[in-house]
Amino acid sequence: MNNSLSQVLRHIKPLDSKAIEAAQARQNELTKPRGSLGRLEELSIKIAGIKGEIIRGFKHKVIVTMAADHGVVEEGVTLYPQEVTRQMVFNFLNGGAAINVLGRLVGARVVVVDMGVVGGFEPHPNLVCKMIDFGTKDMTKGPAMIRQQALDAIEAGIAVVEAEIAKGLDIVGTGDMGIGNTTASSAIAATITGEPAEKVTGRGEGLDNERLAHKVKVVQKALDINKPDSRDPIDVLSKVGGFEIGGLAGVMLGAAGHRIPVVIDGFISGAAALIATALAPGLKDYLIAAHLSAESGHKILLQHLGLTPLLSLEMRLGEGTGAVLGIAIVEAAVKTLAEMATFTEAGVSKEKH
Amino acid sequence: MNNSLSQVLRHIKPLDSKAIEAAQARQNELTKPRGSLGRLEELSIKIAGIKGEIIRGFKHKVIVTMAADHGVVEEGVTLYPQEVTRQMVFNFLNGGAAINVLGRLVGARVVVVDMGVVGGFEPHPNLVCKMIDFGTKDMTKGPAMIRQQALDAIEAGIAVVEAEIAKGLDIVGTGDMGIGNTTASSAIAATITGEPAEKVTGRGEGLDNERLAHKVKVVQKALDINKPDSRDPIDVLSKVGGFEIGGLAGVMLGAAGHRIPVVIDGFISGAAALIATALAPGLKDYLIAAHLSAESGHKILLQHLGLTPLLSLEMRLGEGTGAVLGIAIVEAAVKTLAEMATFTEAGVSKEKH
Repeated sequence: MNNSLSQVLRHIKPLDSKAIEAAQARQNELTKPRGSLGRLEELSIKIAGIKGEIIRGFKHKVIVTMAADHGVVEEGVTLYPQEVTRQMVFNFLNGGAAINVLGRLVGARVVVVDMGVVGGFEPHPNLVCKMIDFGTKDMTKGPAMIRQQALDAIEAGIAVVEAEIAKGLDIVGTGDMGIGNTTASSAIAATITGEPAEKVTGRGEGLDNERLAHKVKVVQKALDINKPDSRDPIDVLSKVGGFEIGGLAGVMLGAAGHRIPVVIDGFISGAAALIATALAPGLKDYLIAAHLSAESGHKILLQHLGLTPLLSLEMRLGEGTGAVLGIAIVEAAVKTLAEMATFTEAGVSKEKH
Repeated sequence: MNNSLSQVLRHIKPLDSKAIEAAQARQNELTKPRGSLGRLEELSIKIAGIKGEIIRGFKHKVIVTMAADHGVVEEGVTLYPQEVTRQMVFNFLNGGAAINVLGRLVGARVVVVDMGVVGGFEPHPNLVCKMIDFGTKDMTKGPAMIRQQALDAIEAGIAVVEAEIAKGLDIVGTGDMGIGNTTASSAIAATITGEPAEKVTGRGEGLDNERLAHKVKVVQKALDINKPDSRDPIDVLSKVGGFEIGGLAGVMLGAAGHRIPVVIDGFISGAAALIATALAPGLKDYLIAAHLSAESGHKILLQHLGLTPLLSLEMRLGEGTGAVLGIAIVEAAVKTLAEMATFTEAGVSKEKH
């Protein structure tokens, strides 16, 4: 195992129980019936546990959107042609994609990372280049990548998040772009959750029943050919994963190693979380599931992770669009804990029991 | 029926079908798989229909939080003493309540209205006085208010929203404060939905089983004594309602009459919406249900209104705390429709079918 990964795995510590107690105690003193802010209270307490203290808010919010291509598109599992991955990266850089719009609204900067897009890019001031290769290989014919590339992808994700920490980072959301990446994510989900392919394979950008049935067969074929070892997450990532999925796993691990909360997006980020939590079970405490994607299989994946999504808006776009809305909810949670008056401060009578 | 109410009822028009078509057409041209923004797409189209055009965003966001007291607290249906209503109004004015914190975060101004709080208030620059009376009467012993007060409360709500329109108003959320107001709301919900009291009566601030059973009996007694006429919403409001509930119904009607979208909060706002939509069925198109409250009975109420909530965060605080988070989601919807690039603008390939 490479150096920065093994270091990060050692650095992921349990949540701070004193900060959790202090946050819970403060919640009970705020001017509202106990528990009446529901999941906002739960979130505010979790964030205190992650940060080790009750914080005032998030100054630096970042969405890391990682892009890469997938050789499995040759099997006809998508509605959009492969070049859309590259075209959408330009759309991100020009500020025209959904994640740009929502990032501006929520006040989060969007960091676009090329993890391995076919065609590549000229240097661009707003594009982080961590290219592993021009797309993965077709996983129905052998491993998607070699083991070293899987490790490199995770290390690249750690490096990306550490560079953002150097600039200032208080909360990070994960996002993806990669035509074909729901297919890879389904294969990862099937391997790690142990569920059959048809239970964790969905319509992606909007496949009809016939194409969905074909996609399930493709996922199954990739599993049969590669036999990924569910006890070895690097093996799973290399055989049926993707470069952006490995990168996102690295972002999660790197952030948690620095006590930074991670808001995970939908199905692809969820697959990355399966890899990352298999490497470091303690990571789970640092993860917040932003939303339940419309992609079938996401629910099973979140159940395996033990995470309850905050939102359920029938979204299935990726890019980090769910994560950025999730960050807005987490921010609401943190602000209420920090800024609400206590019963004593406000001179409000407490409940009688 | 008074003048401004009858005028408003005439002014609530169907949504603009041309704007809806234009919004749907634009959604299909934006750089994302069709439908992949889920409920954000649906919301953006609804807002276009309300406004009569595709808008760029909401400059003026307002939460109207209306406070009033309830005579039924004499029956022992609450954990908090009645003076908490008045104390919480001071907390709102001092910026220490949850709604203040969330309003600041979302960029919505919070308009606090005294609709009839026991004890009353000295004039305050940030408190709108529309006091109908110092709290309602105990509805287990007769009508909560006389019919003219019910009409006055609705008219007051219309006046409040029209004053905000004069200052600038693009979207409004509703909120409430009133110890005892879940009891009144349950009686309204039982009358208008036709469901039995025990199905629409919940724990409020956190009643235990014994106190909940007592509260159900109190609701039933109020219904038995008053026999509110479900076909006459003013009769229902006057017999088992509250001043803030009437006021909020007026806010909804007044906003819709001026083509302004209304994001409704939880159970109390929902009860107000039952009254308001009974007066003007066309109002429903202007309403957006922010969240599913943890208050049992809210689900039944939303089903009766035909509204699907955006959020489900186990919140049950009122004040407009759900509504303000709902406004943030609606804003995300509107911004994506307005600001995302089209396939043509971004040079992104469309799907093949």
